[in-house]
Amino acid sequence: MTAQHRIEEQLTDEVIASFARTPDPRLKELMEALTRHLHAFIRETRLTEAEWTRAIEFLTAAGHITDDKRQEFILLSDVLGASMQTIAVNNEAYENATEATVFGPFFVEESPLVGVGGDIAGGATGTPCWVSGTVRDTSGNPVPNARIEVWEADEDGFYDVQYADSRVAGRGHLFSGEDGGFAFWCTTPTPYPIPHDGPVGALLDAVDRSPVRAAHLHFMVSAQDFRTLVTHIFVEGDPQLEIGDSVFGVKESLIKRFEEQPAGAPTPDGRALGDKPWARSRFDIVLAPSQ
Amino acid sequence: MTAQHRIEEQLTDEVIASFARTPDPRLKELMEALTRHLHAFIRETRLTEAEWTRAIEFLTAAGHITDDKRQEFILLSDVLGASMQTIAVNNEAYENATEATVFGPFFVEESPLVGVGGDIAGGATGTPCWVSGTVRDTSGNPVPNARIEVWEADEDGFYDVQYADSRVAGRGHLFSGEDGGFAFWCTTPTPYPIPHDGPVGALLDAVDRSPVRAAHLHFMVSAQDFRTLVTHIFVEGDPQLEIGDSVFGVKESLIKRFEEQPAGAPTPDGRALGDKPWARSRFDIVLAPSQ
Repeated sequence: MTAQHRIEEQLTDEVIASFARTPDPRLKELMEALTRHLHAFIRETRLTEAEWTRAIEFLTAAGHITDDKRQEFILLSDVLGASMQTIAVNNEAYENATEATVFGPFFVEESPLVGVGGDIAGGATGTPCWVSGTVRDTSGNPVPNARIEVWEADEDGFYDVQYADSRVAGRGHLFSGEDGGFAFWCTTPTPYPIPHDGPVGALLDAVDRSPVRAAHLHFMVSAQDFRTLVTHIFVEGDPQLEIGDSVFGVKESLIKRFEEQPAGAPTPDGRALGDKPWARSRFDIVLAPSQ
Repeated sequence: MTAQHRIEEQLTDEVIASFARTPDPRLKELMEALTRHLHAFIRETRLTEAEWTRAIEFLTAAGHITDDKRQEFILLSDVLGASMQTIAVNNEAYENATEATVFGPFFVEESPLVGVGGDIAGGATGTPCWVSGTVRDTSGNPVPNARIEVWEADEDGFYDVQYADSRVAGRGHLFSGEDGGFAFWCTTPTPYPIPHDGPVGALLDAVDRSPVRAAHLHFMVSAQDFRTLVTHIFVEGDPQLEIGDSVFGVKESLIKRFEEQPAGAPTPDGRALGDKPWARSRFDIVLAPSQ
């Protein structure tokens, strides 16, 4: 070991030792591991002082663009796959349970309640889409009264909270019935870019990556005695599935057919859509038990 | 390898692959290494979703307290030893050259020029202190006309830029003479806490660490054909040297005697200090060649 190697290693050891008196053992473990990886990153890459300065400037810019409607640090975590990796370690595959994916920054508490067969679009633009399915446990038993939160961007690629006018659109919740069944109207999801006019967008540019997310419809499904499921369904045939989802959220099992229906085709609940085409999709959800 | 292990590893591989088209090979290397370490941190610690959320909140708070006078991300890098590790990899020990240490967030461009023997205090409170020495190369030859930047906190532990009144105090620059010699008046450094009323201070509290920096005087010494030296000198006997410097900046070779002189003791340059005691210290600087 060279003298230089020893100097660098001793510094890492000194920093790790500084956490020795941390009262919370979990915080101690996290700080020690963070120190080890952060120092190893600097040492392995021989990070220059100019690059360190650039990193400080990047974090500062991310902090300054972040407010109660824009969360650049979540975007950063998303495009580095850190959000998806956190989802992976906390939602270990369980038998045939539906896979989880990223939560994203656009969920809002207290979305409107829509009855079974109701419309979560709330005026959002897009092709009307009927989504139906069931909520079951891993043995196939229906899970009644599961809370199903659904949210999505409109046809222009924006969630309601991204507009300045405090509209509520493209989000809602409903409950599964006695047989575990559910159905609602929404709009067919379309691909859209994550907000890319900030430092994370500049980073994606610099690494020649698309900021576009594969088209998706968000779900959060919760029921007593079950692990809460945060997931999406994706649209079979969406070209962005080939290009790559900008936040690594796609799983094969979550890609669903959205069948296009011509204008005038009878709707499942008799809703009159005039001269508009519409679509339908099916999503059967399997919840893992909580432990 | 379990199925779960494979899912996590594939995700890391997928993210690394997403940087494949990065035009700048150095940026590609940095993003790949960052991804590897970030994902390994999450996987090894089995980071929970609540902990991930806490990390996002921490970074957001750090971003919001940061402005043109307060740099919480540099403080964070400092208390994690990341700043000092970056210094270490970029300033490999070179023969008998003076060791480098952290730059800190309080350097200001265009400090006042003081002649040799001048006073950088500019009204800052503290015990007057005469610092003299030489600038030489590693063979002992004098380095004339080296630019010597000096800056420090006042007796109350604040740098001039931390006051609201735009004073300039406790900073200045001078040039070494033909014989490499230099001398100036400043104030004897005293220990002070890094700004700890923000998220980094809360973190230090939670891990039971002192926010106090060992007393120090900052130097940045530059001369043509030499590697720019960013360093401090520390005060022998300062109790904080035992407790631990909050940013890991101390190196044994940088601890210097500050000899206290009684009021009335004749000063090196005949300056009259009335009934004030004063101090003196010596710092002989050795510059490494550039590259």
